[in-house]
Amino acid sequence: MTLFTLLDYASVLVFALTGALVASRAQLDIVGFCFFASLTAVGGGTLRDVLLDRNPVFWIDRPSYLGVACGAALLVFVSAHLFESRYKVLVWLDAFALAIAVAAGSGVAQSLNHSAPVVLVMGIITGSMGGLMRDVVSNEVPLVLKQGELYVTCAFAGSAATVIASHFGLTPSLVAITCAAVTFTLRAGSMAFGWSLPVYKSRPPRV
Amino acid sequence: MTLFTLLDYASVLVFALTGALVASRAQLDIVGFCFFASLTAVGGGTLRDVLLDRNPVFWIDRPSYLGVACGAALLVFVSAHLFESRYKVLVWLDAFALAIAVAAGSGVAQSLNHSAPVVLVMGIITGSMGGLMRDVVSNEVPLVLKQGELYVTCAFAGSAATVIASHFGLTPSLVAITCAAVTFTLRAGSMAFGWSLPVYKSRPPRV
Amino acid sequence: MTLFTLLDYASVLVFALTGALVASRAQLDIVGFCFFASLTAVGGGTLRDVLLDRNPVFWIDRPSYLGVACGAALLVFVSAHLFESRYKVLVWLDAFALAIAVAAGSGVAQSLNHSAPVVLVMGIITGSMGGLMRDVVSNEVPLVLKQGELYVTCAFAGSAATVIASHFGLTPSLVAITCAAVTFTLRAGSMAFGWSLPVYKSRPPRV
Repeated sequence: MTLFTLLDYASVLVFALTGALVASRAQLDIVGFCFFASLTAVGGGTLRDVLLDRNPVFWIDRPSYLGVACGAALLVFVSAHLFESRYKVLVWLDAFALAIAVAAGSGVAQSLNHSAPVVLVMGIITGSMGGLMRDVVSNEVPLVLKQGELYVTCAFAGSAATVIASHFGLTPSLVAITCAAVTFTLRAGSMAFGWSLPVYKSRPPRV
Repeated sequence: MTLFTLLDYASVLVFALTGALVASRAQLDIVGFCFFASLTAVGGGTLRDVLLDRNPVFWIDRPSYLGVACGAALLVFVSAHLFESRYKVLVWLDAFALAIAVAAGSGVAQSLNHSAPVVLVMGIITGSMGGLMRDVVSNEVPLVLKQGELYVTCAFAGSAATVIASHFGLTPSLVAITCAAVTFTLRAGSMAFGWSLPVYKSRPPRV
Repeated sequence: MTLFTLLDYASVLVFALTGALVASRAQLDIVGFCFFASLTAVGGGTLRDVLLDRNPVFWIDRPSYLGVACGAALLVFVSAHLFESRYKVLVWLDAFALAIAVAAGSGVAQSLNHSAPVVLVMGIITGSMGGLMRDVVSNEVPLVLKQGELYVTCAFAGSAATVIASHFGLTPSLVAITCAAVTFTLRAGSMAFGWSLPVYKSRPPRV
């Protein structure tokens, strides 16, 4: 099993947990949990594979990804009521999943010798699109739209770390760790300490 | 014309009717009717073909699918005011379309010798994604989110019927009929008699 | 650089401006601006390329498209507060982008010798899907749903102009100009003078 397969499994697992948590907020049945878990888990990577014309798509090649997603859904179905704030658990798990998926997405594009901008975009797509599909389908406000929080920015920075670390000749494993660490640190800092970039204001404050 | 082509035509026709009914609820013009009819009609099958890398996509190969969808749109445009409850007609037509599309999706994946999990997922995707796109774009609450109703579950059970019936050597036509019957029966039972699976509750009732 | 590459660049630029304007309405940071600008700018053309199985997708082949989109995002980020009504600017820019993208989408399908219905659909998809993704992700009411305004109709008419003009042997440049002119004129007329098609009413008025 290659590094990227392993990263895909890890991000599938954690994204599936977030999808199942969204299903719990919508009070769905177990099949609804599996649906949202799978959509979230494989959405970003599927888009990456379709855009890069990788055949077959990763979970068609190894359907056990779907088993992992449904296992995660079952776990949440029987245990989510134990958590006081499911939304808080959701956004923190989403941060982990984002970090891993950005590493998987940018790493795959890098390994296929794509140009730096494509590596950047594939990291962002793989990291954020599964969660975006989850939020759009479930009528939640997409995390990418949350004001005053870094989200796509973290994916961008992580993908940039992949490009830079590869340029300096790090091994793929070290590149992936660097990328995930940068992504997660930024996202965690944004959630815990309010790190943010200046947002657009319709009228800038007078100096 | 093969069995699956025929099933695709049937599901395109019925899904197009549901798409046009949504357009009627949004009070669009005839081109808006054709847009929603076509999006709903070919959405699920298009996703199936892109994921399975079937080239060309079914409606690019046979554009008459789009003619069927637009014909259905026109029919609804001139006649939908005759129905007392367009929403009721919509959900029952959607149930028919779901049944046919699940048979088409799982059958195509089965005929391409994909593994059982991929057959299951392709049945679910082909059955539910066109309607999901319709609901997301038109700002209706997706049918997959309706509490206390079976929806994805019906697609799952129908696809499972395809896998099992194929395993026992039924002919493709019988497999498709079995799949569609299972899917429709479950969906109809859910709508008419309230059949459902237990849903997740944030706090389970005390024993 | 071919005609269609040029058209793709132009539609990327103008659609990116509209995406960035949506980001400004959501008060995002600069990365959020680039995200919405890129999604809107390449969304429709990406769907066209995936459906037509054109490999690689246009912006993977030439990542400078993404540079154009991010440049447009930056421009809007620093200047959008100068406009009194950003929504008005947005819908007029969207009309320009629609016209160019319909010409690019229908022209590419025509140049690949696809049938007339496929040319029509590719014009509509390339023209409207980027903006639709922008609106769905940002929770704005999709322009395709606006009552009493022509939108998909303009894309349809423009694509039809491509088919007809090609049939009469016009050069690709003239075909593209005709298509864009038809699309923009209809859209502008609809916005400025209220041109529309009759919409569906649940109960038609008595005669």
